Amino acid sequence: MGHPDENIYPTATGRAAETVEQHQEPQDLVFWAGWFCPFVQRVWIVLEEKNIPYQYKEVNPYKKEQHFLDINPKGLVPAIEYKGRALYESLVICEFLEDAYPSRAPHLLPQDPFDRAYVRLWVDHVSKSIIPAFHRVLQAQEPEKQKQFLEEYYVTLRAVADKVKGPYFLGEHFSLVDVVVAPWVIRDYILKEHRGYTREGVSPKWKDYVEQLINRESVRKTQSDLEHYEPIYARYLRDEAQSEVAKATRSGRGLP
Amino acid sequence: MGHPDENIYPTATGRAAETVEQHQEPQDLVFWAGWFCPFVQRVWIVLEEKNIPYQYKEVNPYKKEQHFLDINPKGLVPAIEYKGRALYESLVICEFLEDAYPSRAPHLLPQDPFDRAYVRLWVDHVSKSIIPAFHRVLQAQEPEKQKQFLEEYYVTLRAVADKVKGPYFLGEHFSLVDVVVAPWVIRDYILKEHRGYTREGVSPKWKDYVEQLINRESVRKTQSDLEHYEPIYARYLRDEAQSEVAKATRSGRGLP
Repeated sequence: MGHPDENIYPTATGRAAETVEQHQEPQDLVFWAGWFCPFVQRVWIVLEEKNIPYQYKEVNPYKKEQHFLDINPKGLVPAIEYKGRALYESLVICEFLEDAYPSRAPHLLPQDPFDRAYVRLWVDHVSKSIIPAFHRVLQAQEPEKQKQFLEEYYVTLRAVADKVKGPYFLGEHFSLVDVVVAPWVIRDYILKEHRGYTREGVSPKWKDYVEQLINRESVRKTQSDLEHYEPIYARYLRDEAQSEVAKATRSGRGLP
Repeated sequence: MGHPDENIYPTATGRAAETVEQHQEPQDLVFWAGWFCPFVQRVWIVLEEKNIPYQYKEVNPYKKEQHFLDINPKGLVPAIEYKGRALYESLVICEFLEDAYPSRAPHLLPQDPFDRAYVRLWVDHVSKSIIPAFHRVLQAQEPEKQKQFLEEYYVTLRAVADKVKGPYFLGEHFSLVDVVVAPWVIRDYILKEHRGYTREGVSPKWKDYVEQLINRESVRKTQSDLEHYEPIYARYLRDEAQSEVAKATRSGRGLP
Protein backbone atom coordinates (compact mmCIF):
# COMPACT_ATOMS: atom_id res chain seq x y z
CA MET A 1 0.00 0.00 0.00
CA GLY A 2 1.36 3.46 -0.87
CA HIS A 3 0.95 6.96 0.45
CA PRO A 4 -2.16 7.26 2.57
CA ASP A 5 -3.57 10.63 3.47
CA GLU A 6 -2.55 13.03 6.11
CA ASN A 7 -4.90 12.87 9.06
CA ILE A 8 -4.08 9.26 9.78
CA TYR A 9 -3.85 8.21 13.40
CA PRO A 10 -0.15 7.51 14.02
CA THR A 11 -0.37 4.22 15.92
CA ALA A 12 -2.44 1.11 16.39
CA THR A 13 -5.15 1.31 19.04
CA GLY A 14 -7.38 -1.12 20.93
CA ARG A 15 -6.38 -4.79 20.81
CA ALA A 16 -3.90 -4.08 18.03
CA ALA A 17 -2.00 -1.67 20.29
CA GLU A 18 -1.57 -4.44 22.86
CA THR A 19 -0.28 -6.75 20.16
CA VAL A 20 2.20 -4.11 18.99
CA GLU A 21 3.36 -3.68 22.59
CA GLN A 22 3.97 -7.42 22.90
CA HIS A 23 6.21 -7.40 19.81
CA GLN A 24 8.84 -4.80 20.52
CA GLU A 25 11.75 -7.14 21.28
CA PRO A 26 14.34 -7.60 18.50
CA GLN A 27 13.70 -10.81 16.54
CA ASP A 28 15.06 -12.56 13.45
CA LEU A 29 11.92 -11.41 11.68
CA VAL A 30 11.06 -7.73 11.52
CA PHE A 31 7.53 -6.86 10.42
CA TRP A 32 7.30 -3.44 8.78
CA ALA A 33 3.69 -2.43 9.05
CA GLY A 34 1.04 0.23 8.78
CA TRP A 35 -1.56 -0.52 11.44
CA PHE A 36 -4.38 0.74 9.18
CA CYS A 37 -3.54 -1.18 6.02
CA PRO A 38 -5.73 -4.17 5.04
CA PHE A 39 -2.83 -5.77 3.16
CA VAL A 40 -0.65 -5.44 6.26
CA GLN A 41 -3.42 -7.05 8.26
CA ARG A 42 -3.22 -10.19 6.10
CA VAL A 43 0.38 -10.75 7.07
CA TRP A 44 -0.27 -9.72 10.67
CA ILE A 45 -3.08 -12.27 10.99
CA VAL A 46 -0.78 -15.02 9.66
CA LEU A 47 1.97 -14.05 12.11
CA GLU A 48 -0.49 -14.17 14.97
CA GLU A 49 -2.19 -17.40 13.83
CA LYS A 50 1.12 -19.23 13.66
CA ASN A 51 2.58 -17.53 16.74
CA ILE A 52 5.71 -16.59 14.82
CA PRO A 53 8.13 -14.39 16.77
CA TYR A 54 8.39 -10.97 15.13
CA GLN A 55 9.33 -7.43 15.96
CA TYR A 56 6.63 -4.97 14.92
CA LYS A 57 7.78 -1.66 13.42
CA GLU A 58 5.29 1.02 12.48
CA VAL A 59 6.15 2.69 9.20
CA ASN A 60 5.33 6.37 9.18
CA PRO A 61 4.29 6.98 5.57
CA TYR A 62 5.65 10.54 5.72
CA LYS A 63 8.88 9.73 7.47
CA LYS A 64 10.15 6.32 6.41
CA GLU A 65 13.27 5.09 8.19
CA GLN A 66 16.38 5.04 6.02
CA HIS A 67 17.12 1.41 6.88
CA PHE A 68 13.61 0.45 5.78
CA LEU A 69 14.12 2.15 2.42
CA ASP A 70 17.61 0.67 2.04
CA ILE A 71 16.33 -2.90 2.20
CA ASN A 72 12.97 -2.18 0.58
CA PRO A 73 13.40 0.60 -2.00
CA LYS A 74 9.75 0.62 -3.02
CA GLY A 75 8.99 1.59 0.56
CA LEU A 76 5.73 -0.35 0.60
CA VAL A 77 4.08 -2.08 3.51
CA PRO A 78 3.64 -4.82 4.44
CA ALA A 79 7.26 -5.84 4.28
CA ILE A 80 9.30 -8.24 6.31
CA GLU A 81 12.98 -8.25 7.03
CA TYR A 82 14.43 -11.68 7.58
CA LYS A 83 18.11 -12.04 8.35
CA GLY A 84 18.85 -8.78 6.55
CA ARG A 85 16.82 -9.40 3.39
CA ALA A 86 13.45 -7.89 2.62
CA LEU A 87 10.26 -9.24 1.12
CA TYR A 88 7.17 -7.29 0.18
CA GLU A 89 3.80 -8.08 -1.51
CA SER A 90 1.37 -9.36 1.10
CA LEU A 91 0.60 -12.71 -0.56
CA VAL A 92 4.25 -13.46 -1.28
CA ILE A 93 4.91 -12.86 2.43
CA CYS A 94 1.98 -15.05 3.51
CA GLU A 95 3.24 -17.93 1.36
CA PHE A 96 6.76 -17.35 2.68
CA LEU A 97 5.58 -17.63 6.28
CA GLU A 98 3.89 -20.95 5.46
CA ASP A 99 7.07 -22.23 3.78
CA ALA A 100 9.54 -20.90 6.34
CA TYR A 101 7.75 -22.10 9.47
CA PRO A 102 6.51 -25.55 8.51
CA SER A 103 6.22 -26.79 12.07
CA ARG A 104 4.02 -23.92 13.21
CA ALA A 105 0.32 -24.69 13.17
CA PRO A 106 -2.13 -23.95 11.84
CA HIS A 107 -1.31 -24.57 8.22
CA LEU A 108 -3.16 -21.92 6.32
CA LEU A 109 -2.71 -23.74 3.03
CA PRO A 110 -3.82 -27.38 2.75
CA GLN A 111 -1.20 -30.03 2.11
CA ASP A 112 -3.03 -31.66 -0.79
CA PRO A 113 -1.89 -29.97 -4.03
CA PHE A 114 -5.36 -29.61 -5.47
CA ASP A 115 -6.85 -28.22 -2.25
CA ARG A 116 -3.89 -25.88 -2.01
CA ALA A 117 -4.64 -24.64 -5.52
CA TYR A 118 -8.31 -24.26 -4.63
CA VAL A 119 -7.39 -21.95 -1.74
CA ARG A 120 -5.06 -19.93 -3.97
CA LEU A 121 -7.83 -19.58 -6.54
CA TRP A 122 -10.18 -18.06 -3.98
CA VAL A 123 -7.46 -15.86 -2.51
CA ASP A 124 -7.00 -14.60 -6.07
CA HIS A 125 -10.73 -13.88 -6.30
CA VAL A 126 -10.47 -11.62 -3.26
CA SER A 127 -7.60 -9.65 -4.78
CA LYS A 128 -8.93 -9.52 -8.32
CA SER A 129 -12.67 -9.14 -7.75
CA ILE A 130 -13.63 -8.22 -4.20
CA ILE A 131 -11.07 -5.54 -3.44
CA PRO A 132 -11.42 -3.55 -6.69
CA ALA A 133 -15.21 -3.72 -6.31
CA PHE A 134 -14.96 -2.43 -2.73
CA HIS A 135 -12.98 0.57 -3.93
CA ARG A 136 -15.32 1.28 -6.82
CA VAL A 137 -18.33 1.57 -4.48
CA LEU A 138 -16.30 3.66 -2.10
CA GLN A 139 -15.17 6.15 -4.69
CA ALA A 140 -18.39 6.38 -6.69
CA GLN A 141 -19.94 9.84 -6.33
CA GLU A 142 -23.24 9.56 -8.23
CA PRO A 143 -26.06 7.67 -6.43
CA GLU A 144 -26.82 5.55 -9.49
CA LYS A 145 -23.21 4.48 -9.79
CA GLN A 146 -23.04 3.82 -6.07
CA LYS A 147 -26.06 1.53 -6.33
CA GLN A 148 -24.73 -0.27 -9.39
CA PHE A 149 -21.28 -0.80 -7.89
CA LEU A 150 -22.78 -1.94 -4.58
CA GLU A 151 -24.72 -4.64 -6.42
CA GLU A 152 -21.55 -5.66 -8.22
CA TYR A 153 -19.76 -5.78 -4.87
CA TYR A 154 -22.46 -8.05 -3.45
CA VAL A 155 -21.94 -10.42 -6.38
CA THR A 156 -18.22 -10.74 -5.61
CA LEU A 157 -18.98 -11.56 -1.98
CA ARG A 158 -21.74 -14.05 -2.78
CA ALA A 159 -19.29 -15.98 -4.93
CA VAL A 160 -17.30 -16.62 -1.77
CA ALA A 161 -20.27 -17.12 0.52
CA ASP A 162 -21.67 -19.82 -1.75
CA LYS A 163 -18.47 -21.83 -1.32
CA VAL A 164 -18.13 -21.43 2.43
CA LYS A 165 -18.34 -24.86 4.12
CA GLY A 166 -18.55 -23.33 7.59
CA PRO A 167 -17.58 -22.15 10.04
CA TYR A 168 -14.68 -21.09 7.85
CA PHE A 169 -14.25 -21.16 4.10
CA LEU A 170 -12.81 -24.69 4.00
CA GLY A 171 -14.89 -25.85 6.94
CA GLU A 172 -13.21 -26.49 10.26
CA HIS A 173 -9.81 -25.24 9.20
CA PHE A 174 -9.08 -21.53 9.08
CA SER A 175 -7.17 -20.84 5.86
CA LEU A 176 -5.60 -18.14 3.74
CA VAL A 177 -8.98 -17.38 2.17
CA ASP A 178 -10.32 -16.36 5.57
CA VAL A 179 -7.14 -14.37 6.22
CA VAL A 180 -7.58 -12.24 3.11
CA VAL A 181 -11.35 -11.74 3.48
CA ALA A 182 -11.23 -10.67 7.13
CA PRO A 183 -9.70 -7.17 6.71
CA TRP A 184 -12.51 -6.19 4.33
CA VAL A 185 -15.12 -7.37 6.79
CA ILE A 186 -13.52 -5.20 9.50
CA ARG A 187 -13.84 -2.23 7.17
CA ASP A 188 -17.34 -2.94 5.88
CA TYR A 189 -18.93 -0.56 8.39
CA ILE A 190 -17.62 2.25 6.20
CA LEU A 191 -19.58 0.95 3.22
CA LYS A 192 -22.56 0.50 5.49
CA GLU A 193 -22.52 4.06 6.76
CA HIS A 194 -21.79 5.69 3.43
CA ARG A 195 -23.04 3.41 0.71
CA GLY A 196 -25.90 1.42 2.25
CA TYR A 197 -24.07 -1.90 2.35
CA THR A 198 -25.46 -4.56 4.69
CA ARG A 199 -24.13 -8.01 5.48
CA GLU A 200 -27.68 -9.34 5.10
CA GLY A 201 -27.77 -7.79 1.65
CA VAL A 202 -25.09 -10.22 0.57
CA SER A 203 -26.71 -13.42 1.90
CA PRO A 204 -27.50 -15.19 5.19
CA LYS A 205 -24.50 -17.45 4.60
CA TRP A 206 -22.26 -14.41 4.30
CA LYS A 207 -23.58 -12.94 7.51
CA ASP A 208 -22.79 -16.15 9.44
CA TYR A 209 -19.39 -16.44 7.84
CA VAL A 210 -18.28 -12.92 8.67
CA GLU A 211 -19.36 -13.34 12.27
CA GLN A 212 -16.88 -16.20 12.47
CA LEU A 213 -14.14 -14.11 10.91
CA ILE A 214 -14.50 -11.07 13.13
CA ASN A 215 -14.41 -13.26 16.21
CA ARG A 216 -11.26 -15.13 15.22
CA GLU A 217 -8.61 -14.26 17.81
CA SER A 218 -5.90 -13.36 15.27
CA VAL A 219 -8.32 -10.96 13.60
CA ARG A 220 -9.26 -9.32 16.88
CA LYS A 221 -5.63 -9.00 17.94
CA THR A 222 -4.75 -7.08 14.78
CA GLN A 223 -7.73 -4.77 14.79
CA SER A 224 -7.60 -1.20 15.98
CA ASP A 225 -10.51 0.87 17.24
CA LEU A 226 -12.88 1.12 14.31
CA GLU A 227 -13.28 4.90 14.40
CA HIS A 228 -9.62 5.30 13.46
CA TYR A 229 -10.05 3.52 10.12
CA GLU A 230 -12.75 5.87 8.92
CA PRO A 231 -10.66 9.02 8.30
CA ILE A 232 -8.46 7.04 5.92
CA TYR A 233 -11.50 6.15 3.85
CA ALA A 234 -13.25 9.51 4.21
CA ARG A 235 -11.03 10.88 1.48
CA TYR A 236 -11.73 7.86 -0.73
CA LEU A 237 -15.38 8.65 -0.21
CA ARG A 238 -14.82 12.15 -1.49
CA ASP A 239 -12.58 10.66 -4.21
CA GLU A 240 -9.71 12.77 -2.99
CA ALA A 241 -7.49 10.05 -1.66
CA GLN A 242 -3.89 10.18 -2.84
CA SER A 243 -3.01 6.63 -1.96
CA GLU A 244 -1.72 4.33 -4.69
CA VAL A 245 -4.91 2.31 -4.54
CA ALA A 246 -7.11 5.39 -5.00
CA LYS A 247 -4.99 6.78 -7.81
CA ALA A 248 -5.03 3.41 -9.49
CA THR A 249 -8.80 3.11 -9.17
CA ARG A 250 -9.32 6.56 -10.63
CA SER A 251 -6.84 6.21 -13.46
CA GLY A 252 -7.82 2.64 -14.11
CA ARG A 253 -4.43 1.02 -13.75
CA GLY A 254 -5.52 -1.70 -11.37
CA LEU A 255 -4.18 -2.20 -7.90
CA PRO A 256 -0.47 -1.77 -7.15
CA MET B 1 -7.90 -14.97 -21.17
CA GLY B 2 -11.37 -14.18 -22.47
CA HIS B 3 -12.98 -13.77 -25.86
CA PRO B 4 -10.36 -13.10 -28.51
CA ASP B 5 -11.30 -11.74 -31.88
CA GLU B 6 -12.65 -13.50 -34.87
CA ASN B 7 -9.93 -14.03 -37.45
CA ILE B 8 -7.88 -16.19 -35.17
CA TYR B 9 -6.10 -19.15 -36.69
CA PRO B 10 -7.91 -22.21 -35.32
CA THR B 11 -4.97 -24.41 -34.37
CA ALA B 12 -1.37 -24.34 -33.23
CA THR B 13 1.23 -24.33 -36.02
CA GLY B 14 4.96 -24.91 -36.31
CA ARG B 15 6.66 -26.63 -33.37
CA ALA B 16 3.57 -26.14 -31.22
CA ALA B 17 1.50 -28.17 -33.66
CA GLU B 18 3.91 -31.09 -33.27
CA THR B 19 3.62 -30.80 -29.52
CA VAL B 20 -0.17 -30.80 -29.72
CA GLU B 21 0.00 -33.90 -31.93
CA GLN B 22 2.14 -35.69 -29.34
CA HIS B 23 -0.42 -35.03 -26.61
CA GLN B 24 -3.65 -36.44 -27.95
CA GLU B 25 -3.81 -39.60 -25.82
CA PRO B 26 -6.20 -39.53 -22.84
CA GLN B 27 -4.36 -38.76 -19.60
CA ASP B 28 -5.17 -38.07 -15.94
CA LEU B 29 -4.44 -34.44 -16.67
CA VAL B 30 -6.32 -32.62 -19.41
CA PHE B 31 -4.90 -29.28 -20.51
CA TRP B 32 -7.55 -26.93 -21.88
CA ALA B 33 -5.68 -24.43 -24.01
CA GLY B 34 -5.75 -21.65 -26.56
CA TRP B 35 -2.60 -22.04 -28.64
CA PHE B 36 -2.29 -18.24 -29.04
CA CYS B 37 -2.69 -17.22 -25.39
CA PRO B 38 0.39 -16.04 -23.47
CA PHE B 39 -1.13 -17.16 -20.17
CA VAL B 40 -1.77 -20.60 -21.64
CA GLN B 41 1.86 -20.67 -22.76
CA ARG B 42 3.03 -20.28 -19.15
CA VAL B 43 1.31 -23.50 -18.15
CA TRP B 44 2.30 -25.21 -21.38
CA ILE B 45 5.98 -24.40 -20.80
CA VAL B 46 5.78 -25.84 -17.28
CA LEU B 47 4.15 -29.04 -18.55
CA GLU B 48 6.86 -29.42 -21.16
CA GLU B 49 9.72 -28.54 -18.77
CA LYS B 50 8.65 -31.16 -16.29
CA ASN B 51 7.61 -33.70 -18.91
CA ILE B 52 4.23 -34.14 -17.26
CA PRO B 53 1.82 -36.37 -19.19
CA TYR B 54 -1.16 -34.37 -20.41
CA GLN B 55 -3.84 -34.43 -23.04
CA TYR B 56 -3.99 -31.19 -25.01
CA LYS B 57 -7.43 -29.89 -25.92
CA GLU B 58 -7.83 -26.76 -28.01
CA VAL B 59 -10.65 -24.55 -26.78
CA ASN B 60 -12.53 -22.84 -29.58
CA PRO B 61 -13.47 -19.50 -28.04
CA TYR B 62 -16.65 -19.38 -30.11
CA LYS B 63 -17.69 -22.97 -29.57
CA LYS B 64 -16.68 -24.14 -26.11
CA GLU B 65 -17.36 -27.80 -25.33
CA GLN B 66 -20.14 -28.35 -22.84
CA HIS B 67 -17.97 -30.57 -20.65
CA PHE B 68 -15.36 -27.81 -20.48
CA LEU B 69 -17.99 -25.31 -19.33
CA ASP B 70 -19.48 -27.81 -16.88
CA ILE B 71 -16.24 -28.19 -14.97
CA ASN B 72 -14.99 -24.63 -15.55
CA PRO B 73 -18.00 -22.28 -15.66
CA LYS B 74 -15.92 -19.18 -16.28
CA GLY B 75 -14.81 -20.84 -19.50
CA LEU B 76 -11.34 -19.33 -19.32
CA VAL B 77 -8.08 -20.76 -20.56
CA PRO B 78 -5.67 -21.97 -19.42
CA ALA B 79 -7.49 -24.58 -17.37
CA ILE B 80 -6.60 -28.06 -16.32
CA GLU B 81 -8.81 -30.95 -15.50
CA TYR B 82 -7.34 -33.36 -13.01
CA LYS B 83 -9.33 -36.41 -11.98
CA GLY B 84 -12.57 -34.64 -12.83
CA ARG B 85 -11.88 -31.34 -11.07
CA ALA B 86 -10.89 -28.12 -12.79
CA LEU B 87 -8.37 -25.44 -11.98
CA TYR B 88 -7.89 -22.15 -13.77
CA GLU B 89 -5.68 -19.03 -13.32
CA SER B 90 -2.32 -19.62 -14.95
CA LEU B 91 -0.18 -19.01 -11.85
CA VAL B 92 -2.38 -21.16 -9.62
CA ILE B 93 -1.95 -23.94 -12.17
CA CYS B 94 1.83 -23.45 -12.37
CA GLU B 95 2.14 -23.69 -8.58
CA PHE B 96 -0.16 -26.73 -8.61
CA LEU B 97 2.06 -28.50 -11.13
CA GLU B 98 5.07 -27.87 -8.89
CA ASP B 99 3.20 -29.21 -5.86
CA ALA B 100 1.55 -32.17 -7.56
CA TYR B 101 4.63 -33.52 -9.37
CA PRO B 102 7.39 -33.12 -6.77
CA SER B 103 9.62 -35.77 -8.30
CA ARG B 104 9.61 -34.23 -11.77
CA ALA B 105 12.57 -32.01 -12.49
CA PRO B 106 13.28 -29.26 -12.98
CA HIS B 107 11.91 -27.50 -9.94
CA LEU B 108 10.76 -24.14 -11.21
CA LEU B 109 10.52 -22.75 -7.69
CA PRO B 110 13.55 -22.96 -5.39
CA GLN B 111 13.32 -25.09 -2.26
CA ASP B 112 14.62 -22.39 0.08
CA PRO B 113 11.62 -20.38 1.39
CA PHE B 114 13.23 -17.00 0.86
CA ASP B 115 14.42 -17.79 -2.66
CA ARG B 116 10.97 -19.19 -3.41
CA ALA B 117 9.46 -15.88 -2.27
CA TYR B 118 11.99 -13.97 -4.36
CA VAL B 119 10.85 -15.85 -7.48
CA ARG B 120 7.19 -15.21 -6.64
CA LEU B 121 7.96 -11.52 -6.20
CA TRP B 122 9.40 -11.23 -9.68
CA VAL B 123 6.63 -13.36 -11.20
CA ASP B 124 4.28 -10.83 -9.63
CA HIS B 125 6.25 -7.99 -11.26
CA VAL B 126 5.63 -9.55 -14.67
CA SER B 127 1.89 -9.77 -14.06
CA LYS B 128 1.48 -6.43 -12.34
CA SER B 129 3.93 -4.26 -14.25
CA ILE B 130 5.19 -5.78 -17.50
CA ILE B 131 1.97 -7.13 -18.95
CA PRO B 132 -0.20 -4.06 -18.34
CA ALA B 133 2.58 -1.88 -19.76
CA PHE B 134 2.80 -4.09 -22.87
CA HIS B 135 -0.90 -3.64 -23.48
CA ARG B 136 -0.78 0.10 -22.94
CA VAL B 137 1.85 0.55 -25.64
CA LEU B 138 -0.06 -1.74 -27.92
CA GLN B 139 -3.35 0.06 -27.58
CA ALA B 140 -2.03 3.63 -27.58
CA GLN B 141 -3.12 5.46 -30.73
CA GLU B 142 -1.36 8.84 -30.45
CA PRO B 143 2.38 8.87 -31.27
CA GLU B 144 3.22 10.80 -28.11
CA LYS B 145 1.40 8.30 -25.95
CA GLN B 146 3.00 5.42 -27.81
CA LYS B 147 6.42 6.89 -27.11
CA GLN B 148 5.66 7.53 -23.46
CA PHE B 149 4.22 4.09 -22.87
CA LEU B 150 7.10 2.44 -24.72
CA GLU B 151 9.54 4.15 -22.33
CA GLU B 152 7.46 2.97 -19.40
CA TYR B 153 7.49 -0.54 -20.84
CA TYR B 154 11.28 -0.45 -21.12
CA VAL B 155 11.48 0.48 -17.44
CA THR B 156 9.45 -2.58 -16.43
CA LEU B 157 11.75 -4.84 -18.46
CA ARG B 158 14.95 -3.26 -17.19
CA ALA B 159 13.84 -3.98 -13.64
CA VAL B 160 14.00 -7.68 -14.53
CA ALA B 161 17.12 -7.45 -16.67
CA ASP B 162 19.04 -5.80 -13.83
CA LYS B 163 18.36 -8.83 -11.64
CA VAL B 164 19.18 -11.51 -14.19
CA LYS B 165 22.13 -13.59 -12.99
CA GLY B 166 22.47 -15.37 -16.34
CA PRO B 167 21.89 -17.32 -18.40
CA TYR B 168 18.47 -17.38 -16.71
CA PHE B 169 16.93 -15.10 -14.11
CA LEU B 170 18.26 -17.08 -11.14
CA GLY B 171 21.44 -18.11 -12.94
CA GLU B 172 21.87 -21.71 -14.06
CA HIS B 173 18.38 -22.81 -13.05
CA PHE B 174 15.43 -22.05 -15.28
CA SER B 175 12.59 -20.86 -13.03
CA LEU B 176 9.03 -19.59 -13.00
CA VAL B 177 10.27 -16.05 -13.68
CA ASP B 178 11.68 -17.20 -17.02
CA VAL B 179 8.45 -19.10 -17.71
CA VAL B 180 6.28 -16.00 -17.33
CA VAL B 181 8.61 -13.64 -19.21
CA ALA B 182 9.08 -15.90 -22.24
CA PRO B 183 5.62 -15.51 -23.85
CA TRP B 184 6.05 -11.73 -23.95
CA VAL B 185 9.42 -12.09 -25.62
CA ILE B 186 7.85 -14.30 -28.30
CA ARG B 187 5.32 -11.58 -28.97
CA ASP B 188 7.69 -8.61 -28.87
CA TYR B 189 8.08 -8.55 -32.64
CA ILE B 190 4.59 -7.03 -32.72
CA LEU B 191 5.74 -4.11 -30.60
CA LYS B 192 8.82 -3.87 -32.75
CA GLU B 193 6.90 -3.64 -36.00
CA HIS B 194 4.18 -1.33 -34.73
CA ARG B 195 5.60 0.66 -31.85
CA GLY B 196 9.35 0.86 -32.46
CA TYR B 197 10.34 -1.46 -29.61
CA THR B 198 13.80 -2.98 -29.77
CA ARG B 199 15.45 -5.48 -27.44
CA GLU B 200 18.57 -3.32 -27.51
CA GLY B 201 16.46 -0.39 -26.39
CA VAL B 202 15.85 -2.17 -23.11
CA SER B 203 19.49 -3.04 -22.33
CA PRO B 204 22.32 -5.31 -23.48
CA LYS B 205 21.59 -7.59 -20.52
CA TRP B 206 17.97 -7.89 -21.63
CA LYS B 207 19.00 -8.79 -25.16
CA ASP B 208 21.23 -11.62 -23.92
CA TYR B 209 18.60 -12.85 -21.54
CA VAL B 210 15.81 -13.04 -24.10
CA GLU B 211 18.08 -14.94 -26.49
CA GLN B 212 18.33 -17.60 -23.80
CA LEU B 213 14.59 -17.65 -23.30
CA ILE B 214 13.59 -18.00 -26.93
CA ASN B 215 16.04 -20.86 -27.36
CA ARG B 216 14.80 -22.83 -24.35
CA GLU B 217 13.34 -26.08 -25.72
CA SER B 218 10.06 -25.83 -23.77
CA VAL B 219 9.53 -22.34 -25.18
CA ARG B 220 10.23 -23.46 -28.73
CA LYS B 221 7.94 -26.48 -28.38
CA THR B 222 5.00 -24.28 -27.36
CA GLN B 223 5.48 -21.61 -29.98
CA SER B 224 3.46 -21.40 -33.16
CA ASP B 225 4.52 -19.70 -36.39
CA LEU B 226 4.94 -16.05 -35.50
CA GLU B 227 2.76 -14.68 -38.29
CA HIS B 228 -0.29 -16.32 -36.70
CA TYR B 229 0.03 -14.29 -33.49
CA GLU B 230 -0.13 -10.96 -35.26
CA PRO B 231 -3.81 -10.94 -36.31
CA ILE B 232 -4.80 -11.34 -32.68
CA TYR B 233 -2.90 -8.23 -31.80
CA ALA B 234 -3.79 -6.26 -34.93
CA ARG B 235 -7.12 -5.39 -33.36
CA TYR B 236 -5.41 -4.36 -30.11
CA LEU B 237 -3.30 -2.08 -32.24
CA ARG B 238 -6.41 -0.49 -33.63
CA ASP B 239 -7.88 -0.55 -30.09
CA GLU B 240 -10.75 -2.63 -31.37
CA ALA B 241 -10.02 -5.84 -29.55
CA GLN B 242 -12.91 -7.35 -27.65
CA SER B 243 -10.87 -9.64 -25.47
CA GLU B 244 -11.20 -9.34 -21.72
CA VAL B 245 -7.67 -7.98 -21.50
CA ALA B 246 -8.37 -5.26 -24.08
CA LYS B 247 -11.68 -4.29 -22.53
CA ALA B 248 -10.02 -4.15 -19.15
CA THR B 249 -7.16 -2.00 -20.43
CA ARG B 250 -9.58 0.44 -22.05
CA SER B 251 -11.98 0.64 -19.13
CA GLY B 252 -9.20 0.63 -16.61
CA ARG B 253 -10.29 -2.34 -14.59
CA GLY B 254 -6.93 -4.12 -14.58
CA LEU B 255 -6.34 -7.55 -16.03
CA PRO B 256 -8.84 -10.36 -15.50
